[in-house]
Amino acid sequence: MEILKHNKITNESVKNSAIRRKVHKNKSKQPPRVGIIMGSDSDLEIMSEAAKILSDFKIPHEVRIVSAHRTPQELYQYAESAESRGIRVIISGAGGAAHLPGMVASLTPLPVIGVPVCSPTNPVGGIDSLYSIVQMPPGVPVATVSINGARNAGILACSILSATDPVLLDKVSEFKQKMRNEIRLKNEKLDEMGHEEYLEQYRKSHKGK
Amino acid sequence: MEILKHNKITNESVKNSAIRRKVHKNKSKQPPRVGIIMGSDSDLEIMSEAAKILSDFKIPHEVRIVSAHRTPQELYQYAESAESRGIRVIISGAGGAAHLPGMVASLTPLPVIGVPVCSPTNPVGGIDSLYSIVQMPPGVPVATVSINGARNAGILACSILSATDPVLLDKVSEFKQKMRNEIRLKNEKLDEMGHEEYLEQYRKSHKGK
Amino acid sequence: MEILKHNKITNESVKNSAIRRKVHKNKSKQPPRVGIIMGSDSDLEIMSEAAKILSDFKIPHEVRIVSAHRTPQELYQYAESAESRGIRVIISGAGGAAHLPGMVASLTPLPVIGVPVCSPTNPVGGIDSLYSIVQMPPGVPVATVSINGARNAGILACSILSATDPVLLDKVSEFKQKMRNEIRLKNEKLDEMGHEEYLEQYRKSHKGK
Amino acid sequence: MEILKHNKITNESVKNSAIRRKVHKNKSKQPPRVGIIMGSDSDLEIMSEAAKILSDFKIPHEVRIVSAHRTPQELYQYAESAESRGIRVIISGAGGAAHLPGMVASLTPLPVIGVPVCSPTNPVGGIDSLYSIVQMPPGVPVATVSINGARNAGILACSILSATDPVLLDKVSEFKQKMRNEIRLKNEKLDEMGHEEYLEQYRKSHKGK
Amino acid sequence: MEILKHNKITNESVKNSAIRRKVHKNKSKQPPRVGIIMGSDSDLEIMSEAAKILSDFKIPHEVRIVSAHRTPQELYQYAESAESRGIRVIISGAGGAAHLPGMVASLTPLPVIGVPVCSPTNPVGGIDSLYSIVQMPPGVPVATVSINGARNAGILACSILSATDPVLLDKVSEFKQKMRNEIRLKNEKLDEMGHEEYLEQYRKSHKGK
Amino acid sequence: MEILKHNKITNESVKNSAIRRKVHKNKSKQPPRVGIIMGSDSDLEIMSEAAKILSDFKIPHEVRIVSAHRTPQELYQYAESAESRGIRVIISGAGGAAHLPGMVASLTPLPVIGVPVCSPTNPVGGIDSLYSIVQMPPGVPVATVSINGARNAGILACSILSATDPVLLDKVSEFKQKMRNEIRLKNEKLDEMGHEEYLEQYRKSHKGK
Amino acid sequence: MEILKHNKITNESVKNSAIRRKVHKNKSKQPPRVGIIMGSDSDLEIMSEAAKILSDFKIPHEVRIVSAHRTPQELYQYAESAESRGIRVIISGAGGAAHLPGMVASLTPLPVIGVPVCSPTNPVGGIDSLYSIVQMPPGVPVATVSINGARNAGILACSILSATDPVLLDKVSEFKQKMRNEIRLKNEKLDEMGHEEYLEQYRKSHKGK
Amino acid sequence: MEILKHNKITNESVKNSAIRRKVHKNKSKQPPRVGIIMGSDSDLEIMSEAAKILSDFKIPHEVRIVSAHRTPQELYQYAESAESRGIRVIISGAGGAAHLPGMVASLTPLPVIGVPVCSPTNPVGGIDSLYSIVQMPPGVPVATVSINGARNAGILACSILSATDPVLLDKVSEFKQKMRNEIRLKNEKLDEMGHEEYLEQYRKSHKGK
Repeated sequence: MEILKHNKITNESVKNSAIRRKVHKNKSKQPPRVGIIMGSDSDLEIMSEAAKILSDFKIPHEVRIVSAHRTPQELYQYAESAESRGIRVIISGAGGAAHLPGMVASLTPLPVIGVPVCSPTNPVGGIDSLYSIVQMPPGVPVATVSINGARNAGILACSILSATDPVLLDKVSEFKQKMRNEIRLKNEKLDEMGHEEYLEQYRKSHKGK
Repeated sequence: MEILKHNKITNESVKNSAIRRKVHKNKSKQPPRVGIIMGSDSDLEIMSEAAKILSDFKIPHEVRIVSAHRTPQELYQYAESAESRGIRVIISGAGGAAHLPGMVASLTPLPVIGVPVCSPTNPVGGIDSLYSIVQMPPGVPVATVSINGARNAGILACSILSATDPVLLDKVSEFKQKMRNEIRLKNEKLDEMGHEEYLEQYRKSHKGK
Repeated sequence: MEILKHNKITNESVKNSAIRRKVHKNKSKQPPRVGIIMGSDSDLEIMSEAAKILSDFKIPHEVRIVSAHRTPQELYQYAESAESRGIRVIISGAGGAAHLPGMVASLTPLPVIGVPVCSPTNPVGGIDSLYSIVQMPPGVPVATVSINGARNAGILACSILSATDPVLLDKVSEFKQKMRNEIRLKNEKLDEMGHEEYLEQYRKSHKGK
Repeated sequence: MEILKHNKITNESVKNSAIRRKVHKNKSKQPPRVGIIMGSDSDLEIMSEAAKILSDFKIPHEVRIVSAHRTPQELYQYAESAESRGIRVIISGAGGAAHLPGMVASLTPLPVIGVPVCSPTNPVGGIDSLYSIVQMPPGVPVATVSINGARNAGILACSILSATDPVLLDKVSEFKQKMRNEIRLKNEKLDEMGHEEYLEQYRKSHKGK
Repeated sequence: MEILKHNKITNESVKNSAIRRKVHKNKSKQPPRVGIIMGSDSDLEIMSEAAKILSDFKIPHEVRIVSAHRTPQELYQYAESAESRGIRVIISGAGGAAHLPGMVASLTPLPVIGVPVCSPTNPVGGIDSLYSIVQMPPGVPVATVSINGARNAGILACSILSATDPVLLDKVSEFKQKMRNEIRLKNEKLDEMGHEEYLEQYRKSHKGK
Repeated sequence: MEILKHNKITNESVKNSAIRRKVHKNKSKQPPRVGIIMGSDSDLEIMSEAAKILSDFKIPHEVRIVSAHRTPQELYQYAESAESRGIRVIISGAGGAAHLPGMVASLTPLPVIGVPVCSPTNPVGGIDSLYSIVQMPPGVPVATVSINGARNAGILACSILSATDPVLLDKVSEFKQKMRNEIRLKNEKLDEMGHEEYLEQYRKSHKGK
Repeated sequence: MEILKHNKITNESVKNSAIRRKVHKNKSKQPPRVGIIMGSDSDLEIMSEAAKILSDFKIPHEVRIVSAHRTPQELYQYAESAESRGIRVIISGAGGAAHLPGMVASLTPLPVIGVPVCSPTNPVGGIDSLYSIVQMPPGVPVATVSINGARNAGILACSILSATDPVLLDKVSEFKQKMRNEIRLKNEKLDEMGHEEYLEQYRKSHKGK
Repeated sequence: MEILKHNKITNESVKNSAIRRKVHKNKSKQPPRVGIIMGSDSDLEIMSEAAKILSDFKIPHEVRIVSAHRTPQELYQYAESAESRGIRVIISGAGGAAHLPGMVASLTPLPVIGVPVCSPTNPVGGIDSLYSIVQMPPGVPVATVSINGARNAGILACSILSATDPVLLDKVSEFKQKMRNEIRLKNEKLDEMGHEEYLEQYRKSHKGK
């Protein structure tokens, strides 16, 4: 849709100024390689975990609200311009009839990771979002992670980028080694304390969480 | 998205000529008041039931394939132009992660009826399509009918149009009366035959169906 | 309906007087074009959102409790008289084995919107209500919205009425534009603040909700 | 029910004559004590199993098609007149959004047995019917049996009638004893043949079923 | 299992003395016509609603804990002796893999009503109990009511007993009329107050519930 | 229930003679260490896979039909006598509301393996059987295997018996090694042929299966 | 496993020393016959119930955290060494995509009991864990107990060990007798108090639990 | 991993020679960048679609059977060696309790795509596989595609590789354009023929498929 590209950018000054502002803000930083988008700011609590892991891995990223249903034009524009803006992976979270990840995937050749978001008031446990994201028709895949699995979406984005980045690949390996070590330490503690005392301590440290 | 309207139509000559051709073909007929769209021609077996009921009610309609995921631009264009082309209700069927009805609803103020399509190979019984269509977020409703309920989608479209069309309203009432009479006739036959014989005849007449 | 005719109709003076009283009360206002009914006053918390959106759109409407199971005669009477009382769309909410929307649809040619209501104590997450409402047999459609989607039911009613009301159609378009603008504003805020600070503020403003 | 009273009842001569005819036909037999109703003649294949067991127990019964959605007035009339016509238990089968059993239960003080019918084309395995029948609100129970469990509905009707009929109670006990004996015989055969040969014979005798 | 009956009663003095004590306690009252049993005293909160409605209808009943899995012999004894002790209907509630209702039904010719109990900690919303109770094989029906529907189980028991008890049948009809009147009163209040004020009052009166 | 044991066996000559006959038949063989029971001979097609694997492992076993609902007394007797007859593990398969495994487990201290059987006509895919078997209350576990997983039930029985039988343990290890080798051979074939040709051959050899 | 051999084994001194330490600590006690492992220390709250019942039965056991996904090598090592360390049964709990029980079962000939763990934040009620554990392919069974059924896993382990240990078998029988007696006592209390008073007391003693 | 080191690695000459042979066979071709693995050769029918799309995109790939449960050591070896052998993305398909994708993901830093495979005999419609693959715990993501979505897995692999390969990115864009054109052609045909004739032709060309 070449035609769209030109005058959209010419005309949609409001939106574009916002984008430019953002680009400006990011100037000091590297341009974002991962775009994190979500259907509503109520998804931010969950989706910010993806941003956090990308920060840990020092991968430049951006966070935006793009609603498939309330801002379909912006969804369009975001998905079509992502590649040329340097984005390499898009992480997209949405709840209920979650169309954002699939629609973005239909509009970009970039890999799209979908996060089924289950809000506390979702009566069907996020299965609606899961199905809406994972059951894409032949031709347009979405790389779906677990319900509320934004952290895993971030790790998957790193893994995808690392496919051609040996340094990043090593970081991902290190990350996995770190997880392993944490469990080793827990087991040592468990051996020393016995499981009853361990559980007692665990309860105390997780009280009110 | 006024900007879009102008040059899209100027540029996308291929698609538009198709639309013009269609409009031309329809000239002898009244312009369509109901648009029936579906994600794939494999949905046509089911969705043609909606067309059939609209023909019975003599409501002009059109049938098109518009895939949310494979032709997102056409979806866009269809939904945005429907109202100005005289469409008053859109019936939209799709299977799996069925985004078509919801995306159309996000792009038009017209009422959109969604049909969850369950193909014979759908492993989860169309629940994926149902959730993807019915669980729309606040602000963008889709009038969802039963799984594979294209016939009901057609009737609902008539019902919606009849809200301000007394002649059509009477036709809908007549239609309901006709259903009632069919059952009365069946009961008379059942009383006469007894249920064993009735069942025997029923089996014969439905063999191989 | 021999049994019914004699004393029921004679006796149902109470109900009829109630209806007359209601009609009287509404005299100053326009007669209702949308009827909002629900199976129990415990559904009112959810269903009042439909009334709210209709008020916002200035569409006259009425709110009543009509239980398919506890007041089957009143359900009957309501559905059969709705059209002649000027109602053009019926919104019907119910939980559990939710028969109200489908039964109303079987008794009126008007379009019926169904809202599956999921109370906080519903053990199966409202899937029982969803199935009971959406899976209607051929011939009698119910326009089903999402679980607890009363707000969307209200918007859909506006959309249906706007099919032949250009002024209302413009209002619906405006409404959609407004939703879009809200998200733009949020994105501007998000760009300015960064997502961590935005989330912090979001949490504060939603605390205890 | 003003609207109803005048001409409906005057006009419903057809139905009433049908009922009278039926009563006439049954004159030679005892008046029915169990009513078996179903939403469509496509349910008859399943529901006839209830009739069969009642015939085996020599309990007079009637079989009728009463659709909650296509013949709501007849549903009404059937349910309200059943008690005075001598019916003591109503067995009601329906598929999809199965409202028939619950609506009948709301209109009669008689015990109502509900059979969730799952047609071969039901995509969700009859769970829609099950929920629509079993999840009735407080005040209006339906005695639900298994999906397609019409045979069990017949046995349950016998059991209910036997609550105050010692002769029938003995028949039910005998019936259970007979089932037990059948299994004893099968076990003897199994012991003699060994399970491989038994299975071989079983396959032959069930081929094509 | 005639053999069982004799010496079980002779030998199991402990249990029998309990039964005798109970019978003694009930002497002043009529002997129980309905038995209410449940798998655990944690089900009593739910199941006591069945007892309450039977008390309202003045139907003598008994309440006992009989666990299919922890007291299989007592289950056996209870089910086999119920009929001869004058019980006419058994209401049986259980959660999880709920075998109590079906096992009782296999051991008695009396009608058995099953209540799927869903405790607050049941992770699958009581669907396990529902399936375990409703999906009985051909030959052994359980009259299943809704999840946690003990109140409806009580009403169904009355309905079953009323099949041959005209006085009780009238009481059931009255009960249904009372429900209807309550809704009429609510509607009058709703008309007078308007739904916003009604909702305000409703919230106040249900606060903390 | 000591009391039961004595005269049950004395009196129930019919059943016992059957058992004796069986024991007699088995005389040449070792007495059975594993009992395979099922609710109906229609389960034999599935359950015979358990017998087959036990034969492969040369573990003596017996196969019987014991229906929780149609032969509750026999279930009782079987479960109570199993241990003294030398049975060490019971494999129990059942479909629908599958109470057999849990009831047996409540009556014996032996480990009980449950097989949820899903017949081709089960509308809910065996989830009813799975829940009825796996969701046992605290105190009475059933070792549940996959839906229709009778073969795995047989292997699990071997594994359980091998816990104190080093020779059998080695056989189980060998069995696992054999599975591994089969896959190695398949991979060699796959490497040689390429996957297209392999698939072609696979299809041919599985045609009509 | 070339990659593994060199430095992993050389490096894994930490783990091995931990195992040695553990063995040392256990010296005074008997070596563990049951291994209880879980994917995360957040599962300990649930899984400690298995340890508790084993302590009650005086069966030596060990408790360790072994994550299929975060410590795959340790999983490997644990499963392969269990048999030679004297373990006879492995109890394994995990949540979500719960691979631990099945992977352990694939690596050891010992019987493996799987506990689907459902954390309070699991949106799908532990059905993901249940399916991941119970639906094992032919050849590799896992003895699955109910969701969060760690207590039952412990009892099942006793039952399995008792298959060749008459003393333990008697303890399991005693345990079942104790459960039975508890219910008898409750029934006596229920008879004395009446169910209303019993419920009142029950509520008081369970308040805040 | 003491047990492993000595003879396993010594003995696993067979496997290693197989790998070497494979590497040899591939010499003429480019070394594989994508590994396609599956739990059983019965998954090959589905999984070969992933290979087909990779061939279309001219991405070198390999196809192997690696069973998590029957060849856990080979799974281990495959996952650990993949990266050093030049694999950049692993596509992994499995059915039932599908542990292969998650276990591979736990053992490699490479991105892993999971395909839930639903065989025609899977009673629960592949939901077991879907949950087992998508619901991975924090730290170890699997990029899950739709049930039986092997074709999409192949496209996603291309998309991932294209993240740093502009030529491949263009191919992916072209691929999407091609899908769009196919639908345009279908719409032109649909316009010309009308939908009845189109459907007639569609049925003919899909007969027997």
